[in-house]
Amino acid sequence: MALIVQKFGGTSVADIDRIRHASGHTAREIAAGNKVIVVVSAMAGVTNQLVEYCNQLSPLATVESRAHYDHVVASGEQVTSGLMALALAERGLPSRAWCGWQIPMTTDSAHSKARIEHIDVRAINESLSRGEVAVVAGFQGITAEGKISTLGRGGSDTTAVALAAAFGAERCDIYTDVDGVYTCDPRIVKKARKLDKVSYEEMLEMASLGSKVLQTRSVELAMNYHVRVQVLSSFDDKPGTFLVDEEELVEQQRVTGIAYSREEARITLVNVENRPGVSAGIFGPLADAGINVDMIVQNVTESGTQTDVTFTVAKTELARALQIVKSGEGMPRFENVHTDSGVAKISVIGVGMRSHAGIAAEMFRTLAEKNINIIVISTSEIKISVLIDEAYIELALRALHTAYGLDAVEEKMV
Amino acid sequence: MALIVQKFGGTSVADIDRIRHASGHTAREIAAGNKVIVVVSAMAGVTNQLVEYCNQLSPLATVESRAHYDHVVASGEQVTSGLMALALAERGLPSRAWCGWQIPMTTDSAHSKARIEHIDVRAINESLSRGEVAVVAGFQGITAEGKISTLGRGGSDTTAVALAAAFGAERCDIYTDVDGVYTCDPRIVKKARKLDKVSYEEMLEMASLGSKVLQTRSVELAMNYHVRVQVLSSFDDKPGTFLVDEEELVEQQRVTGIAYSREEARITLVNVENRPGVSAGIFGPLADAGINVDMIVQNVTESGTQTDVTFTVAKTELARALQIVKSGEGMPRFENVHTDSGVAKISVIGVGMRSHAGIAAEMFRTLAEKNINIIVISTSEIKISVLIDEAYIELALRALHTAYGLDAVEEKMV
Repeated sequence: MALIVQKFGGTSVADIDRIRHASGHTAREIAAGNKVIVVVSAMAGVTNQLVEYCNQLSPLATVESRAHYDHVVASGEQVTSGLMALALAERGLPSRAWCGWQIPMTTDSAHSKARIEHIDVRAINESLSRGEVAVVAGFQGITAEGKISTLGRGGSDTTAVALAAAFGAERCDIYTDVDGVYTCDPRIVKKARKLDKVSYEEMLEMASLGSKVLQTRSVELAMNYHVRVQVLSSFDDKPGTFLVDEEELVEQQRVTGIAYSREEARITLVNVENRPGVSAGIFGPLADAGINVDMIVQNVTESGTQTDVTFTVAKTELARALQIVKSGEGMPRFENVHTDSGVAKISVIGVGMRSHAGIAAEMFRTLAEKNINIIVISTSEIKISVLIDEAYIELALRALHTAYGLDAVEEKMV
Repeated sequence: MALIVQKFGGTSVADIDRIRHASGHTAREIAAGNKVIVVVSAMAGVTNQLVEYCNQLSPLATVESRAHYDHVVASGEQVTSGLMALALAERGLPSRAWCGWQIPMTTDSAHSKARIEHIDVRAINESLSRGEVAVVAGFQGITAEGKISTLGRGGSDTTAVALAAAFGAERCDIYTDVDGVYTCDPRIVKKARKLDKVSYEEMLEMASLGSKVLQTRSVELAMNYHVRVQVLSSFDDKPGTFLVDEEELVEQQRVTGIAYSREEARITLVNVENRPGVSAGIFGPLADAGINVDMIVQNVTESGTQTDVTFTVAKTELARALQIVKSGEGMPRFENVHTDSGVAKISVIGVGMRSHAGIAAEMFRTLAEKNINIIVISTSEIKISVLIDEAYIELALRALHTAYGLDAVEEKMV
């Protein structure tokens, strides 16, 4: 008898029929003799509605207002947990619904993006030992001050992985509306293949680069606690993709997958005075304003007295970033500023890069053959990212997918 | 500096604009130097939606399932409490949102119709003394087992009155979509007048007889703890109706108001065997099935060996009641059963009845003059109720309103 954590995302519990359907996955594990902790998201659309209400009332600029926001938005998962408990009860499976505060799952006081500090396993363990299914409202916890906190959008993934770690679950099944992790977005690259396994590190890069299957923090947590996570679809019964330690990947591909993001915009400062402290002068004020800067390149001009600095920010923050850059406070002098929202970031990812040379060169050659210009390059141990003109995104993804030998050998028979 | 409890019903917080508007009533009390505890209902329609979800999943026949139901439906008030706290914060009024479990307000374990057992005043008092407005989610509490409980539909009134009692509030203002308690339904009787004051006992009779301004239990609670309740509209700034002790009513009318209900149906058992235990035989099984019986009359026939028994039940429970009566288990023998859903109950109410004779006679005479047949009569110390054909309801209400001198002297100038 093992303990399984099952997490159902918003589309898997979008209405009463789907909640009933999802409860069937739990019934199957119980019938197999396992104990189950179910974690649920809010019904699809509910959190957006609640966030919208809050935004209509307040800019949510203070910790106090974000505490009120948490009090509001945590209710979505509470509703689903009660409904899932009802669905299980109707299948004859005794169950108990748990809000974060009932466990209790304590977090820090960083409202709207709190971090889990401690999970008390006693009450749920007692419930499980009475033969009940524990149905936990994801995304939420309670602070030391007794206020409701939430873990940030997608936080139910983190709830599920954290519970799997705390209870030593054999497996953490993340039920979603895709049936696993693919070598590339199958909507763009028809020959994309579903991966049976992907390493935590690779998943982390994919998640942070825009493959929105799992919340980044949940992957970090799974990696740190070696939680065996499976991403699978709630709408069929096929196995999904397992997140595993790197050593479990028997045959390492050079490249495991290719991710992309359309969500960044480029800012270039032209002819910046070149003196020590220039970077700090530019990026300090942006960081102070809470604007995340992703890719950064700096080229010295021929004279050596001036430099061009290019970086990317989220498109949604472009206007604010530009305002800060132009305001000049603490900024180095520069002649001009260009921006471009029509860019896309493409990243090839693979732990195999550690032992294979030439991956980057192959990327640049492949893009050059298609006449795709590279605007910015950024690399890490297991990924290479380039910024290109958004118009070439499909062409680039397909060419790279083929170049790295990721294409499915034959079309699946349906 | 006084403590005021303000309660806003579902229509007063139906959308973000109304929540913002309602928060103005709180700001006014704060500006006047008072401390405020705000109690909120769910946004209009939300509870119905949540109840509907639960009904789709389960008949809610077990205590366990009703605990899940409570876990779901309590979320509606939680949302409004957070939103109201945000609205107050935007007015520069520091506030804290409180769910039932955060206070904590403990209840018994009768899920979906729990009763408040204890209110811990310490945490809210600390918050109030820090200058915060306490915004309490109505309708809910927490059981000794740590589960969320709810107080039954309309339970936010009870939350408000219970808090006013526990904190010794100077006043409990119940903001709703009507501007007070009237001598009769002004939609039917144009000359109905708003009452400045009404006694708890009278309000109790009106509430239980279908004047749905306040939850009955909240009035009982107000009466027991002498809470000064004001019913008023959140959409204008006029004073409403005060619930007061009987002694405060300086000039006692013979009749204070006339209430009605279209929600009952009549069942008559014809020629029931007349022996001891007949009533228990009929009403025991109905009570066991949780069916509330309201008016009861029993007439012995001429022979004395048989009797006709007439009683009323809620229209929604007529089919179930009839099934139990006909099933015969434990029932006395009877020849026939008639039912009638086309009936209405009219009640004249007034503490003045205690000292004035002839109120009932006047009622019967007034109805007789209009050729309205009385089917059943039932009386208590401060009310007389009659069951009549539903078709005559408007005629009867207007005639009685005039007969008891309740008509407004002149039309208000607008």
